[in-house]
Amino acid sequence: MNRNIKLTLAYDGSEFRGWQIQPGLPTVQGTLSDVIGRTTGEKVLPQGSGRTDTGVHALAQIATFSTDSPIPVDNLRVVLNDRLPPSIRILAVDEVSPDFHARHSAKAKTYRYRVYRGDIVPPWLARYVAHHPWPLDEAAVFEAAEYVIGEHDFTSFAAFDPDKSDRSEEVDYEEPKHATNVRKIYESSWCSEGEEIIYTVRGNGFLHHMVRNLVGTFLLVGKGTWNPGDIRKILEAKDRSAAGPTAPSSGLWMVGVEY
Amino acid sequence: MNRNIKLTLAYDGSEFRGWQIQPGLPTVQGTLSDVIGRTTGEKVLPQGSGRTDTGVHALAQIATFSTDSPIPVDNLRVVLNDRLPPSIRILAVDEVSPDFHARHSAKAKTYRYRVYRGDIVPPWLARYVAHHPWPLDEAAVFEAAEYVIGEHDFTSFAAFDPDKSDRSEEVDYEEPKHATNVRKIYESSWCSEGEEIIYTVRGNGFLHHMVRNLVGTFLLVGKGTWNPGDIRKILEAKDRSAAGPTAPSSGLWMVGVEY
Repeated sequence: MNRNIKLTLAYDGSEFRGWQIQPGLPTVQGTLSDVIGRTTGEKVLPQGSGRTDTGVHALAQIATFSTDSPIPVDNLRVVLNDRLPPSIRILAVDEVSPDFHARHSAKAKTYRYRVYRGDIVPPWLARYVAHHPWPLDEAAVFEAAEYVIGEHDFTSFAAFDPDKSDRSEEVDYEEPKHATNVRKIYESSWCSEGEEIIYTVRGNGFLHHMVRNLVGTFLLVGKGTWNPGDIRKILEAKDRSAAGPTAPSSGLWMVGVEY
Repeated sequence: MNRNIKLTLAYDGSEFRGWQIQPGLPTVQGTLSDVIGRTTGEKVLPQGSGRTDTGVHALAQIATFSTDSPIPVDNLRVVLNDRLPPSIRILAVDEVSPDFHARHSAKAKTYRYRVYRGDIVPPWLARYVAHHPWPLDEAAVFEAAEYVIGEHDFTSFAAFDPDKSDRSEEVDYEEPKHATNVRKIYESSWCSEGEEIIYTVRGNGFLHHMVRNLVGTFLLVGKGTWNPGDIRKILEAKDRSAAGPTAPSSGLWMVGVEY
């Protein structure tokens, strides 16, 4: 009886060296692997819908693993939460069809980025936002985001990685899902909420560092370095050096995956 | 030119072994003392309005220290925040009259206690609430709180400390402000907010562990161990063993001090 199990989980990324398992370092995947292993007696490596970097949080990451264990899904949720640290919570456990895969089956993903505009970040928010108390033309920031809606080559916003220039968040190196840096963005918008401005972006996939590089670039538009319309030229350049810096990981939240 | 400086500060208590300085351990008072010392060049030990234990947070703790430094208060705020960890933030710096003292001058203090009632505590709230997902007669909990309003001997709710049975939060051992365990409570009430129930208590002073012991007792009323009116008998007993357990520190917030 081989069952395919889907986990919906939330985590505080500031407590981990990212999603991906690394020997001797605390990672979300590694912690899950340990705890599932102790629970089912099997050696498993849950596959996430995508990696997240050190400091990046998840409201609802999706991961799958297969097991021969007969433990009912509701019990599994309770036992795993009991054994996991408070920084990882399993929100739901579902048994899914054998062909469902957290990454390959994903149709769209949504990320959010929180920028704290107030003078002083309250200590209990410091891990969960990026701080930008400096003058900012917020209307220009908000407008800039609209220019990335649609299908574009996002090379200018992809992490420059000399070893793996094609490294995308979704790539596992055996079977890349996307062979290019072209992605489709369905939603890209900012809103104001109290002392924060929050960016929401929904697309069919994201390159490594793409959301943080977009935010870093939008913030430079708000500083006056570029006009909102210059985002178009930056996309066309297909050159990482044409865009702005990578915004800090603390502000980034994976908020959901659609299948 | 000896100036008396008043700090209003917020902190995340989960990062510290409480307020009070302890050699070799991270404490709020110790961290402030270091950073002020590096800024003014003087050895100072800021006096808080009261101690907080490991894991207890502050929305607005008050501390005072005297200095010969001429640094203007606005600059002091910026420099101290620059040098402090993100887990401590100075919200305001004021120069006050020489006779003002954070603890001796305090007329009333307010604490809040957050109880998370949902099944799963989101990772980013785990440090800031106590988790109580079990059945609870919330109406009884809310009613129980009313019985402590007024002037009472709170011995039943004071930490039992074999060495210092009179140890109260406000006591410094040279000059106790309150010689007894009698305190006046002006407000004691619960409210519901989303997945949380939140206790607010305002009084002229609090014994060590008093708020956490009150909450632990109210929760047992909600479990049916006692009736709300039994709070009166527990107060009359003047015996720590008559009351309920100490609720976890994570839910406790010092929210303000009045002068």
